[in-house]
Amino acid sequence: MSTALGPGAEFDAIRRMLIRWGDRATGIGDDAAVLSVPRGDSLVVSVDSAIEGRHFRAPWLSATEIGYRAAAAALSDVAAMAAQPRGVLIALGVSPAWRDRLEEIAEGIGEAVSACGTTILGGNMSAAGELSITTTVLGSAYAPLPRSGAKPGDLVYVTGRLGGVGAALAELLAGRPATTHRARFAHPVPRIAEARWLADAGASAAIDISDGLGADARHLAAASGVELAVEGARIPCADGVDAEGAARSGEEYELLVTVPHTLDAAEFETRFRLPLTEIGCVVAGVAGAVHIAGVPDSHLAGHDHFSA
Amino acid sequence: MSTALGPGAEFDAIRRMLIRWGDRATGIGDDAAVLSVPRGDSLVVSVDSAIEGRHFRAPWLSATEIGYRAAAAALSDVAAMAAQPRGVLIALGVSPAWRDRLEEIAEGIGEAVSACGTTILGGNMSAAGELSITTTVLGSAYAPLPRSGAKPGDLVYVTGRLGGVGAALAELLAGRPATTHRARFAHPVPRIAEARWLADAGASAAIDISDGLGADARHLAAASGVELAVEGARIPCADGVDAEGAARSGEEYELLVTVPHTLDAAEFETRFRLPLTEIGCVVAGVAGAVHIAGVPDSHLAGHDHFSA
Repeated sequence: MSTALGPGAEFDAIRRMLIRWGDRATGIGDDAAVLSVPRGDSLVVSVDSAIEGRHFRAPWLSATEIGYRAAAAALSDVAAMAAQPRGVLIALGVSPAWRDRLEEIAEGIGEAVSACGTTILGGNMSAAGELSITTTVLGSAYAPLPRSGAKPGDLVYVTGRLGGVGAALAELLAGRPATTHRARFAHPVPRIAEARWLADAGASAAIDISDGLGADARHLAAASGVELAVEGARIPCADGVDAEGAARSGEEYELLVTVPHTLDAAEFETRFRLPLTEIGCVVAGVAGAVHIAGVPDSHLAGHDHFSA
Repeated sequence: MSTALGPGAEFDAIRRMLIRWGDRATGIGDDAAVLSVPRGDSLVVSVDSAIEGRHFRAPWLSATEIGYRAAAAALSDVAAMAAQPRGVLIALGVSPAWRDRLEEIAEGIGEAVSACGTTILGGNMSAAGELSITTTVLGSAYAPLPRSGAKPGDLVYVTGRLGGVGAALAELLAGRPATTHRARFAHPVPRIAEARWLADAGASAAIDISDGLGADARHLAAASGVELAVEGARIPCADGVDAEGAARSGEEYELLVTVPHTLDAAEFETRFRLPLTEIGCVVAGVAGAVHIAGVPDSHLAGHDHFSA
């Protein structure tokens, strides 16, 4: 597609990224991209931004990891709806310091897109004062799994083990290299196939854990008009992390789901090599409330970009 | 939908924007938005960013105009494909100086979305060092009109009168208030119905004029593998602007189209109260080349974010 772009430094940069992407980029070069959605499916769309100094700091990650992580975080939102990604659009704001590293960023974006079985449909590039990567993900699902379907009596499950990201971040913020859990921070994995398995198994609601288990449980509880009662001692924790640390850790991109019945966790774990743990239940209670036995409520606030 | 969001300053800001949007925002509050596309239609998607200091400067526009203009520019890309907008996603990067003006920005975004007959499906808000508004537009069309369909022998048409935006920008850059053509800069109008009329009338290719007639003609010529021959004297110019100024003026958001036959420009003008002007023709020539008789080729370079 590179010959279909006009001349100029901006298009040269885009051309280099397209060469790097190869057949991971399709249909680029028109005003808009064209996409077919499987008949009967609903379209599921989401947008997520990663901004330098807010979502990451340059010394913590390689340029490739920055690109990967930005795209993976966005893909996770569509995964949480139990949808299959059908394509992404990438809007880059590029500061002078990053101009020479665009191909590495593109490589990371390409890795995330490939890992999720989809392609780059198009994008936009602008000069900017800070690096920003805004990823729009388009997906489709016959029956998208919302946040709002939890009912009193449902069980609450979580995938993976939580807290590794928070532990890595604490080390990085203290100026030390992240040790045990660095990969959890640098290389999150959108749980696409896992979410579809859970939806097929009857899940009533789901959310991906981006703000922290406690905060995202509140979002799900608010959307469903229910209360969530979680046993702190049951939360699956990363090595060296306690329940409170696990409940506060954001950007995990694991799934929190509610289900009207017990799931076959052993089958899930065999198939995905990932724990699936029942951690509590849904009660009528106070709409939007979450109680985690053993963790003070005041310690559950999620990350708030505007509070800092 | 506002009750479905959790607590926190970030969500408070989103709630205030949702109140301002009213029924112009639908379905917000899940990980991703769900959308149906009319059966038989293809989905058309595009993303566009407006960044403070790059695409606008704060003193030139009100906060409402900044929001309107950002969304209108993005909607224009989908209009150029002769598609009907079906929804937008808004990703905001918000610097401290803009926190108190988010509702005004939201009002402008809402105006553009309403004017184009669509709604806000979702979005994302992050703290940032500079204001950025990244708009993803989803649309659909039975037969999207690409840039790549121009054939030798086609005629070249343009909507509207060009150069007003460049004239306004020259005044603003010189530190003077824009006089005659300020509205062309502050309040561009995506040509949605116009593009669909042109597609129905048999247009073979189209592009919206964002980089300038000369530069965008090159993009269309490159995508179609043809050369465009334009008569400078026929370019419809805004008051006080010459052909060169009109050919260089970007962010016009008028349409440049190619058509295999003469169009009924009088009917177009009666229906849309907008000029439709034949300005040249498509020739085999050199793929990607554009010649505008009376305007030196070297004066046709479009805006390049990375050349400055």
